[in-house]
Amino acid sequence: MKFALAPHPNAHLVGQADARAHLSTPALVLEKAAFEANVRAMAAFAADRGVKLRPHAKTHKSAEIARLQLGAGAIGICVAKLGEAEALHAAGIGPLLITSPIVSRPQLDRLARLHQDASDLLVVADSVDGAQGLADAAAGAAHPLNVLIDLDIGLHRTGIAPGPAALGLITFVMRHPALRFRGLQAYGGHLQHINDFAERRSKGLRALEPVAALRDQVAAKGIACEIISGSGTGTFAIDVEAQLFTELQVGSYVFMDREYNDVETGPQNRVDLQTSLFVETSVISANHPGIATTDAGLKSFATEAGPPPIHSGAPEGAKYFFFGDEQGGVLFAQPEHALKPGSRLRCVTPHCDPTVNLYSHYHVMDGDRLVSLWPVDARGRSA
Amino acid sequence: MKFALAPHPNAHLVGQADARAHLSTPALVLEKAAFEANVRAMAAFAADRGVKLRPHAKTHKSAEIARLQLGAGAIGICVAKLGEAEALHAAGIGPLLITSPIVSRPQLDRLARLHQDASDLLVVADSVDGAQGLADAAAGAAHPLNVLIDLDIGLHRTGIAPGPAALGLITFVMRHPALRFRGLQAYGGHLQHINDFAERRSKGLRALEPVAALRDQVAAKGIACEIISGSGTGTFAIDVEAQLFTELQVGSYVFMDREYNDVETGPQNRVDLQTSLFVETSVISANHPGIATTDAGLKSFATEAGPPPIHSGAPEGAKYFFFGDEQGGVLFAQPEHALKPGSRLRCVTPHCDPTVNLYSHYHVMDGDRLVSLWPVDARGRSA
Repeated sequence: MKFALAPHPNAHLVGQADARAHLSTPALVLEKAAFEANVRAMAAFAADRGVKLRPHAKTHKSAEIARLQLGAGAIGICVAKLGEAEALHAAGIGPLLITSPIVSRPQLDRLARLHQDASDLLVVADSVDGAQGLADAAAGAAHPLNVLIDLDIGLHRTGIAPGPAALGLITFVMRHPALRFRGLQAYGGHLQHINDFAERRSKGLRALEPVAALRDQVAAKGIACEIISGSGTGTFAIDVEAQLFTELQVGSYVFMDREYNDVETGPQNRVDLQTSLFVETSVISANHPGIATTDAGLKSFATEAGPPPIHSGAPEGAKYFFFGDEQGGVLFAQPEHALKPGSRLRCVTPHCDPTVNLYSHYHVMDGDRLVSLWPVDARGRSA
Repeated sequence: MKFALAPHPNAHLVGQADARAHLSTPALVLEKAAFEANVRAMAAFAADRGVKLRPHAKTHKSAEIARLQLGAGAIGICVAKLGEAEALHAAGIGPLLITSPIVSRPQLDRLARLHQDASDLLVVADSVDGAQGLADAAAGAAHPLNVLIDLDIGLHRTGIAPGPAALGLITFVMRHPALRFRGLQAYGGHLQHINDFAERRSKGLRALEPVAALRDQVAAKGIACEIISGSGTGTFAIDVEAQLFTELQVGSYVFMDREYNDVETGPQNRVDLQTSLFVETSVISANHPGIATTDAGLKSFATEAGPPPIHSGAPEGAKYFFFGDEQGGVLFAQPEHALKPGSRLRCVTPHCDPTVNLYSHYHVMDGDRLVSLWPVDARGRSA
């Protein structure tokens, strides 16, 4: 008999009321109540301000979470990569907006197939060559390909400067029969984590001024920007003041992480977002005074935002550190502090998106009950 | 008709002679010739020195690569985690040594099932409580559980100090009918990346002295350490001088990475190891002077060892930087340098193990031919 390999070592615990204590770790844990509260809070915020939501699935990579966001009123879902779009489309999620330019020949060939199957697909272009590639990919289809012009508002990562070149690109897209101009995308990734609210607000609103100017220039030619898409979890409360975006691409709000928990919220437009995502880890060795070794290392957390804050399970003042590929360490604040092998810690993710990408499943918890294992459908689908 | 989702977007290119130019990126690329040369070179080194090889699969997480290592003479395969052991055992790989202590109740229950099915499984213990847990897990089995005593030789991550307490633990394991004492494990993770060869050699050999002393004390009681397992890609050429290890746990030698390429090799016991593993990435945007934006960001490279060196595809002096979750950036050395959207770069992985863990498949390349897609069978199986 072949050794049976479960999709996840905790699969047999689904539905079990006291599953929490029996989880094999490291485990990516989603607290259902906090998660659902976040989904509701952002939906209410958008409804109150008359703006739409197109949440970004690069954060969660999950068809189930996308479905819940759509169920709460989102008009569609953003993805960063073509591979994410394919995975979510195959799972029945749409309409999808792919927020990064697709330019290379192999990807344009794949885009053509996806577009044949998904007439409501939205893509972005940030150059005339890029738009020509999209037009070639869409040429054989029964319907035009929906295009937003991706604008660079200061990050200099993707996007065309919101000036004359952008106007030229809009004209190119509008004239091409295989393409359908739908509007603009503007994402200020460099603004999201400015800690000080006043500084974030002033820089954020200034960055949007050229976008508003471009919209007005386009309108003066009799062309409407039906969609203006952008914003993020760090700036949505500010961005709505500009009355520019027709929709918000917020992503991390569903989970929150160390980085976003550190960002100061402002006096108005507050939305109470809770940390719903955690990594549970266990102590596996405790032979050396002052430290304990856990089972969650470089393969269990994204590391570029530093070590994870310990949420619970360790003595006051203890700090987490990365102890190699497979292990983490807990550094105790007091010499008398210790943790026994087998004891459990709960950590906040330093940066949620790339941490989620390390896991195959969410452990959806309602108290101590493991409600479900939700697959991270688009894990690793960056190509 | 349901939209067909391939296991990998490049799956249709397998067998194609000019596949390289048609790969969707980011792609984890394994150069077959260099990889095979590394496997052969380490096998020859071990055979020449009369030491065995038990390569560490935490680096590659691949049943196919483990099979090739075993075919080249390895006596077994190491894994770091129980989940890796389950995945590789299910794929027919063994005997397996799990190099981290297994202590928590849920994992001991899983270990009991694996041990029932794999009588040649080897595990480690670094405390009496831990060994008692292993004994409980093995109690119902038809065969005893093979145990190595994990020794701390200075990293303080796992392991018991090689002194009286270790002797006591050996005695405990020997006396327990459900356990079978097989020997020692000693891994100096803190030594592997000391750049200077002389310093690495002197610290490395000194760290092994208490292990040799323990072996001799054990031998004086009439007990043989049949197995002494340890070493790594940074110290194997030094460790063999100590004539202590019966087997080497080298892992990264199959791929090499930026970290190990930076480690100085010594005058004797040189083994020519080539970089066989790369990440291929494409430029997706190039609107801002001085930089180009690629499709490989924080989800495509492990980041704790810094940005990847660019192997080829960029102008002289260009540097890679992380440009967010989904994108990388190329910073040009000269103002006249540029890269067009669609152009391809090849990067060396900064740290191979956690980078491999981000991908579902290796693209095995023989020149421009895509020979095969090898699954990363144990990706994400850290629990």
